[in-house]
Amino acid sequence: MPTMSAECVIGVDLGGTKLLAGVLDDGLNVHNRIYRPVHGLDQRELVDAIVAGVEEARAAAPGEVVAVGFGIPCLIDQRNGMALMAVNLPIKDMAFRDVMAERLGLPVQVDNDGNLAALAEHRAGAAQGATDSVLLTIGTGIGGGLVLGGRPYRGAIGAGAELGHMVIQADGPPCQGNCPNHGCLETLASGTALAREGTRIAGERPASALGRAMAEGRGITGALITELAHDGDEAAIDTLALIGTNLGVGIANYANIFNPDVVVIGGGVIAAGELLLEPARREMARRALPPTRDHLSIVAARFGTEAGMVGAGALALDAVRQGVT
Amino acid sequence: MPTMSAECVIGVDLGGTKLLAGVLDDGLNVHNRIYRPVHGLDQRELVDAIVAGVEEARAAAPGEVVAVGFGIPCLIDQRNGMALMAVNLPIKDMAFRDVMAERLGLPVQVDNDGNLAALAEHRAGAAQGATDSVLLTIGTGIGGGLVLGGRPYRGAIGAGAELGHMVIQADGPPCQGNCPNHGCLETLASGTALAREGTRIAGERPASALGRAMAEGRGITGALITELAHDGDEAAIDTLALIGTNLGVGIANYANIFNPDVVVIGGGVIAAGELLLEPARREMARRALPPTRDHLSIVAARFGTEAGMVGAGALALDAVRQGVT
Repeated sequence: MPTMSAECVIGVDLGGTKLLAGVLDDGLNVHNRIYRPVHGLDQRELVDAIVAGVEEARAAAPGEVVAVGFGIPCLIDQRNGMALMAVNLPIKDMAFRDVMAERLGLPVQVDNDGNLAALAEHRAGAAQGATDSVLLTIGTGIGGGLVLGGRPYRGAIGAGAELGHMVIQADGPPCQGNCPNHGCLETLASGTALAREGTRIAGERPASALGRAMAEGRGITGALITELAHDGDEAAIDTLALIGTNLGVGIANYANIFNPDVVVIGGGVIAAGELLLEPARREMARRALPPTRDHLSIVAARFGTEAGMVGAGALALDAVRQGVT
Repeated sequence: MPTMSAECVIGVDLGGTKLLAGVLDDGLNVHNRIYRPVHGLDQRELVDAIVAGVEEARAAAPGEVVAVGFGIPCLIDQRNGMALMAVNLPIKDMAFRDVMAERLGLPVQVDNDGNLAALAEHRAGAAQGATDSVLLTIGTGIGGGLVLGGRPYRGAIGAGAELGHMVIQADGPPCQGNCPNHGCLETLASGTALAREGTRIAGERPASALGRAMAEGRGITGALITELAHDGDEAAIDTLALIGTNLGVGIANYANIFNPDVVVIGGGVIAAGELLLEPARREMARRALPPTRDHLSIVAARFGTEAGMVGAGALALDAVRQGVT
């Protein structure tokens, strides 16, 4: 149960189409949620919509709101809170943090969604109590975040923790989007890879439930593969095991590099649960070094679509506790 | 020129066969060096030899020695300074830090050689001024160290930064030693890989200087390949370019993961200089994400065989400055 608290923070997850603002107490329990569409707005309209969303959340808060955190889908220069290289929102080269602090009259922190999801899991989720933790968010692509020594790790100019873009097969398939690489973990263990391998396996095994689904014209998506696997279809189970094994290669790398306490797997693909995690654990144990491999846990994320919002709240709360304004 | 200083530290690099102790001032300039054989000693004899070496260095110091740092070739539990999993020295399960502090009557710090080489480059070498830096030491294998946010990163139980044991080719050749993995960076970009590929290329190109050297019965070592490449032999140059390209795949991964300011390449193989680094830079630029790839420098290490000793001194100096005893 959420506890009542005198001081609250607001966490905002700003996506390309909508924002989610949540009021959180100092235990990161969520008290209220506000959704607003932000699609197709220009910069001034977007800022107004964000301010209106935050003010609505603030009015509903059970205590005084002392800080606001934002998760935004772009690279952020942490020295000045500038938004760099934004793709889906009109905030490129905007001093996002300072503009929001000015408009809201509150201390504001900003980070990207991968870092914030990792922070949410560390502060209140599957990585609670860890010193060093790695988060992989597996959807269409693979995002990630690092909490090292209890603090978010962002790299020299805030562009680190691109954890899906680690080569595990140098001569592998080309990567997606703006990534020029080949054989990235994202090409071999993402939801896109799951659908691609599921389609291939459905073709090879027409008598399986997966093969029959394809013959009936159903799209072979990660969600369908997961549903059929949970129903016991061997072809679907084998597809998830293949992706989980590829994932385990990547986790073995992160094990040897970071010697983390825990690797947390989030994103839509984690709906497969142990059908994905068990093959990943097996492959990691085959490849990683002792004693790291024996120390490491590989677990499902606690937070789903609210990870960014909770992490944004955690970032705001951290800043309040550390006296950063 | 070394500067005179009232306070000094001693850095000790303890290897399987000998120790090197150096007296360093607070600018990490080395004033005196002491070498002692330690091969074949039991634990009591080893401790006595270390104490004698440190005391000899201390007597020769130009100022008061205020702390001692040790680099030892094994996993160290930083919570208690215990030596875990030592292979070449009789110090397994020994409370190395506390025993040495007791015997020497001085504050003692201990770390492994990879971490210390990275620290040496950060404090006084090729990574000076960096916030985040990655060191790869390329010899028979590939070791490494991380300095993140200006501090050594060791992982949850001190077993992190095994940077040579990152898969870049999941179906690649089996790794060496106690590593159960396949296709590690170490299998494709170490001195061992250089000699192996040089032997293959010598066989394919018998008219090259490299091919003729093999026909004459000379062993195809990394040193020979580097010598012939510096003399202009195309086969030797191509061999180094192949290894450099493989190295560049690994560096692209570390770029995307850490967004470091600099990746420093040390170890015997860096004798090849730009013949190794230039192909590595080209491959990194082909694979890593913007803006990380444009921010990153890839440079040769400053310190060679003294990296561990200087890093041990830097660790001792850090502890003095931070008031750790």
